[in-house]
Amino acid sequence: MSLIVQKFGGSSVKDAERLRHVAGIITEYYDAGNDMVVVVSAQGKTTDELIAKAKEISDRPGGREMDMLMSTGEQISASLLVMVLNAMGYSAISLTGWQAGFLTDSNHTRSRIRHINKERLENELDKKNIVVVTGFQGINRYDDITTLGRGGSDTSAVALAAALGASRCQIYTDVDGVYTADPRLVENAVKLNEITYDEMLELASLGAKVLHNRSVEMAKKYNVQLEVLSSLERKPGTIVKEVVKMEKMLIKGVAKDDNVARISLVGLPDKPGIAFKVFSLLASRKINVDIILQSVGHDGTKDILFTIAESEKEAAAEALREIAPAIGIQNVTADSGISKVSIVGAGMESNPGVAAKMFEALGEANINIHMISTSEIKISVLIDKEMGSKAVLAIHDKFAI
Amino acid sequence: MSLIVQKFGGSSVKDAERLRHVAGIITEYYDAGNDMVVVVSAQGKTTDELIAKAKEISDRPGGREMDMLMSTGEQISASLLVMVLNAMGYSAISLTGWQAGFLTDSNHTRSRIRHINKERLENELDKKNIVVVTGFQGINRYDDITTLGRGGSDTSAVALAAALGASRCQIYTDVDGVYTADPRLVENAVKLNEITYDEMLELASLGAKVLHNRSVEMAKKYNVQLEVLSSLERKPGTIVKEVVKMEKMLIKGVAKDDNVARISLVGLPDKPGIAFKVFSLLASRKINVDIILQSVGHDGTKDILFTIAESEKEAAAEALREIAPAIGIQNVTADSGISKVSIVGAGMESNPGVAAKMFEALGEANINIHMISTSEIKISVLIDKEMGSKAVLAIHDKFAI
Repeated sequence: MSLIVQKFGGSSVKDAERLRHVAGIITEYYDAGNDMVVVVSAQGKTTDELIAKAKEISDRPGGREMDMLMSTGEQISASLLVMVLNAMGYSAISLTGWQAGFLTDSNHTRSRIRHINKERLENELDKKNIVVVTGFQGINRYDDITTLGRGGSDTSAVALAAALGASRCQIYTDVDGVYTADPRLVENAVKLNEITYDEMLELASLGAKVLHNRSVEMAKKYNVQLEVLSSLERKPGTIVKEVVKMEKMLIKGVAKDDNVARISLVGLPDKPGIAFKVFSLLASRKINVDIILQSVGHDGTKDILFTIAESEKEAAAEALREIAPAIGIQNVTADSGISKVSIVGAGMESNPGVAAKMFEALGEANINIHMISTSEIKISVLIDKEMGSKAVLAIHDKFAI
Repeated sequence: MSLIVQKFGGSSVKDAERLRHVAGIITEYYDAGNDMVVVVSAQGKTTDELIAKAKEISDRPGGREMDMLMSTGEQISASLLVMVLNAMGYSAISLTGWQAGFLTDSNHTRSRIRHINKERLENELDKKNIVVVTGFQGINRYDDITTLGRGGSDTSAVALAAALGASRCQIYTDVDGVYTADPRLVENAVKLNEITYDEMLELASLGAKVLHNRSVEMAKKYNVQLEVLSSLERKPGTIVKEVVKMEKMLIKGVAKDDNVARISLVGLPDKPGIAFKVFSLLASRKINVDIILQSVGHDGTKDILFTIAESEKEAAAEALREIAPAIGIQNVTADSGISKVSIVGAGMESNPGVAAKMFEALGEANINIHMISTSEIKISVLIDKEMGSKAVLAIHDKFAI
């Protein structure tokens, strides 16, 4: 007998019909003799509706009160799911973040889990209850409700799986696994049976919206075997783990991220410490920089180009324009209209021809590359956004993944 | 400087506009130098919507999960109200039932407050925060969320006022006080400046839907000065307290309750223990009996008539029909279509003419009385429901309240 943690997202629990469907999945595993802990997100558009209520009142509602407000969404779906399970004759109980023992730090709206106090959870499992836990939330040391930010419910599920020593952590979504490319872009994209944590991390951060990075990082750290599968169709999904059986493909997938802006700093003095000033400023504004390219410019100056999330473009450009005169930046420009297209695969580090093959695919498709970035298991290129889908198709075809 | 507890009901906090209006009332008292604790209900129709979600899943959802579900309504309105106060520049904090220290028994959906742990509340008041508490809820000894049932938020407010030694407990509603009769029925109904706890209790239980009985009972027990006033208009309301200045009226008010059903048991054997069997059966089914009338019938039998809430008519009749053969009841009938009209006033016990005057009023209006019940400060009559409004008018006129 083993313990399984399952997580169901907002669309999987959006109404009574979907809740009944989800309860069917849960009880199938419970009937097979497993202890079940289930993590749920807020129903359908609930989170958006709560945000809209807050925005009607204030442009910048405080984090503590936002967490108080937002945490109700999961509390509603958790109690409704238990009602469904009870109506089917199963013994089940819902627990809020604090009841389930989630202790976090005090960074409201984006807190981190510090510890899970397992006592209540284990008591309920001992009573053979199916335990339904509200995802995305906990409390801090002051007993204030906190939320975990984007992808929070995935993180809650992985943290529970790690704390309770679950044999599996199943993340149910509206896709049936991780694909070699977005199936809406690439008709012959293939579902992967297995993928390593590192590959999944690269794919997740590159815009394959299946799992949030934080949950994959945590799964890797605590060696939690993750499984991504569909809440709609009963078929095997993709398993994310440390070592996977070598399949013949070098490349695990092609991903596209349209949420990219490029900042160009032109004509910086070519002396030490300039880059430090730029990036420490951005760090202090909590702006996350992705790809950085530094190049020698004219007349003893240099240029720095980097990418950030589209949503932070204005804030970054404004901050940099403020300090531009003081550190001698001649010009700050911010561009949108850019896509980042990447290939990911643990096999590529021992295979030097991969980058060349990718660039060849793009060249044949007449797509211009603006910037390139590589790591052991990933190659990313920045291209014009309107070329994004064409690039994914061309690369996927070239590698015949 | 004193502490004031204010309670705002669902219609007073139903949207951003009303929340801003309520915040105006709160901050007026805060600016005058008072410590403020505010209790809120769920917004507008939220509670009904949550019940509808549960009913879609199960006819009989479990109490624990209903409380988990229902308690989210107040959490939403409390956090939104704090956002409004913050946006106005005031320091404020929302607390759920458990954060505010409400410990209750374990009767889910109708629990009773056992104790309020004041530590957090007092800490927040020390910091000069306006403290907004979710009404209607607490936790039991197992850390499960409980709710207080109907009128729960009034009870939360009175309990807080008692625990914190508040100088006043203001209940804001959409009427501006307690009237001598329902102003929609009686044009010249008069607002009372003061009323005693006992009179308010009789009026509340007789269908004057201003304050819930439990809150008035608690206010009486802990001598909390209650004030009922309008959240729409700024004018004095009605103060509820132990002793009031004698006003010239004998009768404080006329109330009508249409939620009444009458059960008639005809032809019972005239021997001891029969009434006991009937009413212990009803008590075991948790059916509350109001007025009871026993009369001698024909041929050595007797009849028992009693009233109950309309909503319990079917359950009561069914239970009694089951035991009718065993204890020899010849016939069980259940009637709707009945109103209970009552007059209330502490002065009436020393004034024997009051009942006669009430019956005279009804006789002149050609209204037939089915049953009569009296207490020290109340006289109730049962009449046909279609005569209810006419009766209230006739009595109000007769006493020239």
